[in-house]
Amino acid sequence: MKKLINDPRSVVAETLEGFGAAHADVVEVHSEPDFVTRAGGAVQGKVGLVSGGGSGHEPLHAGFVGVGMLDAAVPGPVFTSPTPDQVLPAIQAADGGKGVLLIVKNYTGDVLNFETAAELADAEGVDVRTVVTNDDVAVQDSLYTAGRRGVAGTVCVEKIAGAAAERGDDLDSVAAVAQRVNDNVRSMGVALTACTVPHAGKPSFDLPEDEIEIGIGIHGEPGRRRIPLASADEITEMLVTPVADDLGLAQGDRVLLFVNGMGGTPSSELYVVYRRARALLEERGVEVTRSLVGNYVTSLEMQGASVSVLRLDDELTELWDAPVHTTALRW
Amino acid sequence: MKKLINDPRSVVAETLEGFGAAHADVVEVHSEPDFVTRAGGAVQGKVGLVSGGGSGHEPLHAGFVGVGMLDAAVPGPVFTSPTPDQVLPAIQAADGGKGVLLIVKNYTGDVLNFETAAELADAEGVDVRTVVTNDDVAVQDSLYTAGRRGVAGTVCVEKIAGAAAERGDDLDSVAAVAQRVNDNVRSMGVALTACTVPHAGKPSFDLPEDEIEIGIGIHGEPGRRRIPLASADEITEMLVTPVADDLGLAQGDRVLLFVNGMGGTPSSELYVVYRRARALLEERGVEVTRSLVGNYVTSLEMQGASVSVLRLDDELTELWDAPVHTTALRW
Repeated sequence: MKKLINDPRSVVAETLEGFGAAHADVVEVHSEPDFVTRAGGAVQGKVGLVSGGGSGHEPLHAGFVGVGMLDAAVPGPVFTSPTPDQVLPAIQAADGGKGVLLIVKNYTGDVLNFETAAELADAEGVDVRTVVTNDDVAVQDSLYTAGRRGVAGTVCVEKIAGAAAERGDDLDSVAAVAQRVNDNVRSMGVALTACTVPHAGKPSFDLPEDEIEIGIGIHGEPGRRRIPLASADEITEMLVTPVADDLGLAQGDRVLLFVNGMGGTPSSELYVVYRRARALLEERGVEVTRSLVGNYVTSLEMQGASVSVLRLDDELTELWDAPVHTTALRW
Repeated sequence: MKKLINDPRSVVAETLEGFGAAHADVVEVHSEPDFVTRAGGAVQGKVGLVSGGGSGHEPLHAGFVGVGMLDAAVPGPVFTSPTPDQVLPAIQAADGGKGVLLIVKNYTGDVLNFETAAELADAEGVDVRTVVTNDDVAVQDSLYTAGRRGVAGTVCVEKIAGAAAERGDDLDSVAAVAQRVNDNVRSMGVALTACTVPHAGKPSFDLPEDEIEIGIGIHGEPGRRRIPLASADEITEMLVTPVADDLGLAQGDRVLLFVNGMGGTPSSELYVVYRRARALLEERGVEVTRSLVGNYVTSLEMQGASVSVLRLDDELTELWDAPVHTTALRW
């Protein structure tokens, strides 16, 4: 296992320490328990947004804490859910008196632990709603999931719900727009290589030198099938077609096309995928009006990519375009 | 070779095609010959900035084209210098009547081809200056270089010179500030794994499973030495100490600390390195007042990182902080 780490047990804490020191203008890192808030803390009179999940997917979620997006993020151990004891103080720190929305990727542990924390917060008088993201069309149930997995589309939910909260929407409205984004975004990924969880010390799964896995999960969970290595155009079509079909994209639809790197793939390859994905959508008469290309929801050093498509309307476009000032997304 | 590509011969063209389509609001991609300009072209009355070099280091340089930074970038084939025939039209496209500064990383082919293009542009009446970056302290001469190599510090040169041009400085002043940044920035990198150039189809060099290379070049050129895999803290010290010593950092100095990923390393590991690098600088009484952490000057999918330190003064800090709107750097 070749990694720039000291001790597998200290990776998350040391990452957070570096992250907090590098970006003290944007975030504040809290430890024992670990969570990240905006520098300056909760914004009074604004709905708070909290997300989180296992570490190893950086910049998700801590990289999306900041003006226009999340108020707090809760990183668990690598590929492991944060505990309710971590989530609760993050909810409290994000509460500006207008309630808190939890954005939770659909994994059994995350859903359970955020739910427990929500109940604890509710008992303390914080109004809490939860939206569970499940944008991955690859499989119906998965290794750690009942129902579809939440993957890269979560970034779209966090960005757009964050903008709605920032403009002053109330909790029900912010939850509704978050749900609407989730209902209109679909994703599917491919792995060229496995990744190695530090405390495991060996690759999460075996992938032969001449095979790739279509529909991979962000923890290396099995996807739809393994196939021999194919061209980028062929692979892209295997990702875009199920996404577009599941979303029921039709002539005239406007979309955000998001090509996400899994961590170990050069950005040049992501643009090769983007190019083909865009052409495939255009062949369906779909107009790509917004784009995002880069490493946003990763699986440690895994080589691979995912394609997400979000169907846009005027309001979602306006909220996507609204200013955002986080460490990973800024405009 | 597992890559998301179609044909090794078309990687650069297809990357540019995707890049241009995804970011038409910021850049315009020109082909035959290949170069990238700001959307809207040259800014009249402003000094133009042009950089370039072999592809495979993305987002360098095309990702830094935009307001506040470069006017044009010229990508060669992977790890291969662009030709004078490519550089010349980029210079012409960047010329807003106040002359053009070329920022060239110190590699023999790049220096030669940009020089030839500069002479051709000069013959056509464009006032051209060149600043050659050579921030890598690892080795004195290298495989493709007489003198030190230009590596990640080039981003600092492009950002700060770009801000100087944007505020209206004349060509001599912009060239002088670019030179001043280069004189005050030093870098050194480490490779954990090799990378594979698409048209070569096999790793550029062999690095045993239990060894790393300290002082690696961004094309995989040999560094200072190979050592057994060590802890992130030990490796970071091997990078920071020569950088700080060479720069002659003293108590009270203020610096920008830039931890750059080589492409295949998760951002979590970059923050582990940042954390230790910052502590080492602080132990010397050096204050880290600005930070940059991420994949900015990569070597395809190489796993590894580099540490750059730029000594700041008030003017360099102000120019670093000035607004920038490119696809890879935006604030």
